Amino acid sequence: MRIIGIDPGTRCLGYGIIDAAGSNVTYIGSGAVTCSDKLPMTDRLVRLYAELTRIISEHRPDCAAVETPFFSENARSALAVGKAQAVAILAAANAGLPVYEYPPAKIKAHISGFGASDKDQVSRMVVLQLGLSQPPAPADASDALACALCHLQEMQTSAIIKRSAGT
Amino acid sequence: MRIIGIDPGTRCLGYGIIDAAGSNVTYIGSGAVTCSDKLPMTDRLVRLYAELTRIISEHRPDCAAVETPFFSENARSALAVGKAQAVAILAAANAGLPVYEYPPAKIKAHISGFGASDKDQVSRMVVLQLGLSQPPAPADASDALACALCHLQEMQTSAIIKRSAGT
Repeated sequence: MRIIGIDPGTRCLGYGIIDAAGSNVTYIGSGAVTCSDKLPMTDRLVRLYAELTRIISEHRPDCAAVETPFFSENARSALAVGKAQAVAILAAANAGLPVYEYPPAKIKAHISGFGASDKDQVSRMVVLQLGLSQPPAPADASDALACALCHLQEMQTSAIIKRSAGT
Repeated sequence: MRIIGIDPGTRCLGYGIIDAAGSNVTYIGSGAVTCSDKLPMTDRLVRLYAELTRIISEHRPDCAAVETPFFSENARSALAVGKAQAVAILAAANAGLPVYEYPPAKIKAHISGFGASDKDQVSRMVVLQLGLSQPPAPADASDALACALCHLQEMQTSAIIKRSAGT
């Protein structure tokens, strides 16, 4: 199973791709699509959607895991966050992928055992779990990989529960 | 010039299409794409995007005018508003249309002379300006037509200013 994790933002959208086969997880790639602050919002959304569509078409993941905070510090920033989330969800769903959403606290709890981890802790755990030599840059790419790993663990846990219920 | 006005929402996305030739404005059509509250957000965004893409492909407008509030009553609702706006902007821009954004107060000021008009006043002015026999339903379709009329007036005003500057 190939998973693309996405950390949406209108200035920087991080993505990370992993392959999972049994208990083996392989790092495929990661990066970020960035947009200048000076670019109008419409142009940013179009660029992010087009780039994400290209990345999905190139790497052909089986599903997408999107980091989606339920709230934001204020209504104005929440508007932008909502736009970025919609870009990620639409690009993945329009490419035919099932889309799973995870709030940041759940990703942090999955990846490092508790929900209040800082970005450095998340990044270190991503490095450890994927056997990387250094943290993926930028931080948004690392967060996207954490989201992909969270989804993988979620799938594995629900598979174990299903097997247990069946015995 | 054919304009599609869009009033984005994740439960109900209103649209309205007008044709403008010189000082003549013709009502082409309007309506709304609705989504059940029970539908997951991802499915709603995909449905709204697909339907709006279909409507644009059918009516072939030259540009899109999208009602985009800059704020919302709280961060949670702003997230949903942001998602709906991104759907409208992406569907129009990905169809090759230039996209113009207008805050509600500007639309109300354009359509009825002041920014604090209520929905009924806006609806009545849409009926008058387009020579309709009754208000378009639902209210979201009427708001979308008001947004299209606002864009038309904005274009006409800037054309007059350009002509004056050129003389």
